[in-house]
Amino acid sequence: MERILNFSREEYVERVKKTKESMSHKGIDALIVTDPANINYLTGFDGWSFYVHQGLVVMLGEEEPVWFGRGQDANAARLTSWLSDDHIRAYTDDYVQSLVKHPMEFVADIIKEKGYDNKIIATEMDAYYYTAKCQESLQKSLPNAKFADGNLIVNWVKIIKSDAEVEFMRRAAKIAEKAMTTAVDSIAEGVRQCDAAANVYHAQISGTKEYGGDYCSIIPLMPAGVRTSTPHLSWTDEPYKNGDTVILELCGNYKRYHCPLSRTLTVGDAPQKVKDLASVVIEGLTITLESIKPGMTCEEAERVWAKSIAKSGFIKDSRIGYSTGLNYPPDWGEHTASFRPGDKTMLRPNMTFHMIPGIWLDDCGVDMSESFRITENGCETFTSIPRKLFEK
Amino acid sequence: MERILNFSREEYVERVKKTKESMSHKGIDALIVTDPANINYLTGFDGWSFYVHQGLVVMLGEEEPVWFGRGQDANAARLTSWLSDDHIRAYTDDYVQSLVKHPMEFVADIIKEKGYDNKIIATEMDAYYYTAKCQESLQKSLPNAKFADGNLIVNWVKIIKSDAEVEFMRRAAKIAEKAMTTAVDSIAEGVRQCDAAANVYHAQISGTKEYGGDYCSIIPLMPAGVRTSTPHLSWTDEPYKNGDTVILELCGNYKRYHCPLSRTLTVGDAPQKVKDLASVVIEGLTITLESIKPGMTCEEAERVWAKSIAKSGFIKDSRIGYSTGLNYPPDWGEHTASFRPGDKTMLRPNMTFHMIPGIWLDDCGVDMSESFRITENGCETFTSIPRKLFEK
Repeated sequence: MERILNFSREEYVERVKKTKESMSHKGIDALIVTDPANINYLTGFDGWSFYVHQGLVVMLGEEEPVWFGRGQDANAARLTSWLSDDHIRAYTDDYVQSLVKHPMEFVADIIKEKGYDNKIIATEMDAYYYTAKCQESLQKSLPNAKFADGNLIVNWVKIIKSDAEVEFMRRAAKIAEKAMTTAVDSIAEGVRQCDAAANVYHAQISGTKEYGGDYCSIIPLMPAGVRTSTPHLSWTDEPYKNGDTVILELCGNYKRYHCPLSRTLTVGDAPQKVKDLASVVIEGLTITLESIKPGMTCEEAERVWAKSIAKSGFIKDSRIGYSTGLNYPPDWGEHTASFRPGDKTMLRPNMTFHMIPGIWLDDCGVDMSESFRITENGCETFTSIPRKLFEK
Repeated sequence: MERILNFSREEYVERVKKTKESMSHKGIDALIVTDPANINYLTGFDGWSFYVHQGLVVMLGEEEPVWFGRGQDANAARLTSWLSDDHIRAYTDDYVQSLVKHPMEFVADIIKEKGYDNKIIATEMDAYYYTAKCQESLQKSLPNAKFADGNLIVNWVKIIKSDAEVEFMRRAAKIAEKAMTTAVDSIAEGVRQCDAAANVYHAQISGTKEYGGDYCSIIPLMPAGVRTSTPHLSWTDEPYKNGDTVILELCGNYKRYHCPLSRTLTVGDAPQKVKDLASVVIEGLTITLESIKPGMTCEEAERVWAKSIAKSGFIKDSRIGYSTGLNYPPDWGEHTASFRPGDKTMLRPNMTFHMIPGIWLDDCGVDMSESFRITENGCETFTSIPRKLFEK
């Protein structure tokens, strides 16, 4: 089959090599990778098949990971990954959502065949799609193995992007700008929220003339009115009303790479409270971004924000940003570095983040955000949409 | 806060009651529910917040489940669920993706407070978002509890839909028809695949004049060419070429209720092989649907399909359908009944299914599907798109 890889084979091999170095450092012989973004990162494998159990077995003694998944998805591995045919292992359909057998029994057989069943095996303990049952099944099937927590091993490898990855995020950024402009243009009094959301989706997927968009790992979050008091509600089929505040947490995606972007809009003139909140957020965001440079830690950056907002009287008790890039639903965050007290991750060039210091009160909220890359001497934002409260 | 419930409070209370009956039957005192669809089913809770740990504690001794989740999502619980304020428990943001604490420690505290920490506690062992770490953390925090597998307890309660739920699926069906018609209209030689996909998304979210659409739990699956050799790839930004086969596995969604629908299309005249494959699938699907009636088992229905296809020489080694309805990403299947050998689930009125006997060969594939409801004496499909191979 004709394979189309998003990155060079060398880049994938290098990613696996770094993963194995980290495993080796931690005394791990084999790592089961089930986070879809990590599977893609190491092999290129793509497809909406993460609703059944699938993953990789990364072994210290092998250059190529072994992909495991459902029979009908093996051709997706052949088409999208760099793995050779004998490293693509598909289980029969009677393993799918079965009450009597579990796909991890199939994985245990691969581990036995490779001679790793009495070694130290790590699993991504808190990764999406790695269920409690997966762990139970694997431990039961490999009584001679020693288990370790391999959570986030690949995530920490991927925190620094290659230039090729940064280019994908730049393309995603162009799509994010289009999505945001479309949202601002579409929202008006009397327009149904679902119709504005439909336009945003269209912009995200159609992309630009030069390249199309991929789906984002989070839906367009565009709550209006009282629903802005919480960040994860979205549109309804009600029309926008004069006086509505609308939060727009949108994104662009190019080949699974994200560029999230948030702004806030009011239908009609903004109430003073929303204006005040927006000013505080914009000022804090701007000052924090201006302060960021390599060598700083995440908590130091957060302290700049905290100091800026302290004088306003508003309270922000959640993290203000996180590492982002390659991902699959349900999240575009990478679960590694966060801008919050206690996070001592040192910022380094080509780390990429989404800084989103949203504030949600009990009757309204304001989001303003930027995705950015750490450069040699500061940071650069991926998009250039005016950092302001839009009034329609 | 003003609450907007999709179903009556009585319906939610009844769902919880049935869940507790099942728990009681299995000797379970408390059930931790983390599947987002099950959380919604029991309480109405909505929001794209399942990327952090959240859920319900359903206890035999309490009418209302306790919702637990992240601080900023508590207002979503107040706005979308029927739960009273003291049953909405939010953890602080330092629990989010932390290396030193886990949200399940917070849940253990609720269980202790309620006096269930020495009782039998069940968890949804193989549910999305219930990670191995969740189970480890909960077991460590509740050393006096006895743990049981509560996987699919709520899923089996929800397999028979209320008339109100069926009405939601009928609305989803109208949107599915619109999405499919839009796809067929949009695809043509030279059109970029992403532009056709963008139109499909627009149709799904904009919905009908009477009501808007919600996001589907699976993206529009619309692979073309050799990518139809596997079911879970989707669009690229390449243009459709004359001779491409395009599989369309689409869906409509109304307030989280799905109506999936598949058809296959060829750009230009269909090759004989694709025509043959389509005929076999259409005939098998039609005969099977005509045979279905309450009292039959899932495996009996599958046998009708298997008998129909046997004479063709094509092989189908995966299940041909599954229960569907209320769901969240990454799946619209309910993980209960499947049409496959060994599944002895008896069909009963108001069960709802997606029958999708797709066949994927090494160079092409064909999908044709129908979503349907079991009636008093047979079944009725939700949509009425011609059951044929579309040639464009």
